[in-house]
Amino acid sequence: MIPGPTNSLVDVDGLSVGHYERTDEGWLTGTTVILAGDEGAVAGVDVRGGGPGTRETDALDPKNLVQRAHAVVLSGGSAFGLAAADGVMRQRHRAGIGMPVGPEGNVVPIVPAAVIFDLGRGGDFASLPDAEFGARASAAATTETPLLGAVGAGTGAQAGGLKGGIGSASLLLSDGSMVAAIVVVNAVGSPVIPHTGELWGARHLLPGDLDGLGLPDGTRLLTPSQDEVQQAATAAAEANPTSRVPRTLATTIGVVATDATLTKAQAARLAGSGHDGMARAINPIHTMYDGDTLFGLATGKGDEPSAEAFHEMLLASGEVVTRAIVRAMLAATSVTTTDGTWRGYRDAFASALKG
Amino acid sequence: MIPGPTNSLVDVDGLSVGHYERTDEGWLTGTTVILAGDEGAVAGVDVRGGGPGTRETDALDPKNLVQRAHAVVLSGGSAFGLAAADGVMRQRHRAGIGMPVGPEGNVVPIVPAAVIFDLGRGGDFASLPDAEFGARASAAATTETPLLGAVGAGTGAQAGGLKGGIGSASLLLSDGSMVAAIVVVNAVGSPVIPHTGELWGARHLLPGDLDGLGLPDGTRLLTPSQDEVQQAATAAAEANPTSRVPRTLATTIGVVATDATLTKAQAARLAGSGHDGMARAINPIHTMYDGDTLFGLATGKGDEPSAEAFHEMLLASGEVVTRAIVRAMLAATSVTTTDGTWRGYRDAFASALKG
Repeated sequence: MIPGPTNSLVDVDGLSVGHYERTDEGWLTGTTVILAGDEGAVAGVDVRGGGPGTRETDALDPKNLVQRAHAVVLSGGSAFGLAAADGVMRQRHRAGIGMPVGPEGNVVPIVPAAVIFDLGRGGDFASLPDAEFGARASAAATTETPLLGAVGAGTGAQAGGLKGGIGSASLLLSDGSMVAAIVVVNAVGSPVIPHTGELWGARHLLPGDLDGLGLPDGTRLLTPSQDEVQQAATAAAEANPTSRVPRTLATTIGVVATDATLTKAQAARLAGSGHDGMARAINPIHTMYDGDTLFGLATGKGDEPSAEAFHEMLLASGEVVTRAIVRAMLAATSVTTTDGTWRGYRDAFASALKG
Repeated sequence: MIPGPTNSLVDVDGLSVGHYERTDEGWLTGTTVILAGDEGAVAGVDVRGGGPGTRETDALDPKNLVQRAHAVVLSGGSAFGLAAADGVMRQRHRAGIGMPVGPEGNVVPIVPAAVIFDLGRGGDFASLPDAEFGARASAAATTETPLLGAVGAGTGAQAGGLKGGIGSASLLLSDGSMVAAIVVVNAVGSPVIPHTGELWGARHLLPGDLDGLGLPDGTRLLTPSQDEVQQAATAAAEANPTSRVPRTLATTIGVVATDATLTKAQAARLAGSGHDGMARAINPIHTMYDGDTLFGLATGKGDEPSAEAFHEMLLASGEVVTRAIVRAMLAATSVTTTDGTWRGYRDAFASALKG
């Protein structure tokens, strides 16, 4: 199994990704937009967390009319951040992209959205993403490899007391189709094994997953020495990943996509298997304080999968989400604001990682 | 965190467990019944697999009338095995246990059921669990520590080409309430990390989880030598856990229970978090060839949990399911029938486990 050329969501033909964030005084939040091209992508969703903040998810029910989404918005700002979709809708509408309605080629862009809780992490609860965040992230969308870590919707993210952020990964399937994920890692639970300091998802990494993430020796993620384990466990305890009483609301959200041709129901199943990947990378996940939500997108550039190919696609969905979460934690660098300090995993666990 | 006294489902006050199976010529299947006492238990369910075989799950929808289940049936026999619930209903009815209906204390026992695919593993596709299996398993129900491995509904189970079976585990929460699971491990995916031979869920084990499971040195589960890894990886390849094309239908089912007082919706959420535990122990899980289903039961012997206590309860649900799956794989011994041979994990990976 090998990742695609960029090992990110844009390996799926038809998708582009844009980030916009603010980190100036009082701010630590942002928005990430996934654009699905002129025709949109067949879309499904699976909401598993106990505290979701979403928009346009009912339209994605296979029983309902809408078949395709034209963009997906992932944003900070808790429920306020749903406003970012307004800006994306206007930008898509100006481009003439959306579901045809009425006469004269009028369209309504279908722009599902999900948000994470990051309020106040920049120091000011009133510094919230709005329609402009969506419009700017949409305008910034490109098929270049997206930045990972504390950017876009991951700007204010934290996970188990460590700095969270944006992660992405892809997998080329044996039938030539691509499966990829982009995830905003922001969780009550922890991506770290408390008694060893290892990342829960590290064993799912593929060759190349650590490229550009500043790790001198990726294998040390799996086999820390006893000294390293002790120091990492201490760091883990300091990061408080095992807290039984969540100190904050959270929510991990994202998109799992393929270039194959799927039905809405299959796209929802693709998203559902992505939640298994979340469970392997973060513990606990899907708590009452997490609104964990994944969208499934199928751009339809390729064929309908055979039963065996769809089986491999669901397996791949879990794997790319797990790997995307690990990559998010490795890409996220420490951040300090007047609200507090969130250490990046590489800083907190340096002794367990540096060769 | 410590397990309860029996480290099994019967640590939950109010529940008893009974197995019945047949392994004589042509047979390799059975039924496991969980009895919920005279009053029954508040019940919820979460169906995640793509090929479920279930009964009375709609009644458990929080929107619907029924509040309590009086027993839960886990059975082999694919959809035929749902007949086992008939025998449990008659046995419960004779005992006067059920939902009161009509005059003269008439009752209808509420007995949800889920089944695994194990057809033909004993050599004869027509050797199927029926109502008598349910009645016998029900009559055998006890609060003694249940047998694990290839017994009851786990008799014909396989997982990733290895012998599957029944597993159970419990966890005592900080507020004194108990959370426990019993699981029938029968999966298309594998509980084994292909490149190391370790069990995916081994890192979730607690002290005592290996007691009585015949392991000279449990830690070897986590730190096999390079030689052991090589041999284990070979064994894993032989067991074909990474097959992209499922050679059989499967399905992992079970019950997660607590002695606390929960609503039906909370019981369903408890079951949902158990699926995260499945994802951590088996990869892939929730495929189109697995009807993975978990029931949530709350016997109500204890209080309603606080928000923090319920958070811990959901975390515990995932952990007991993961641990139960690991314990099932360690308890399952190799089986050979005219249909084939399924090696127990300890046999297949002996070189990676024996001290």
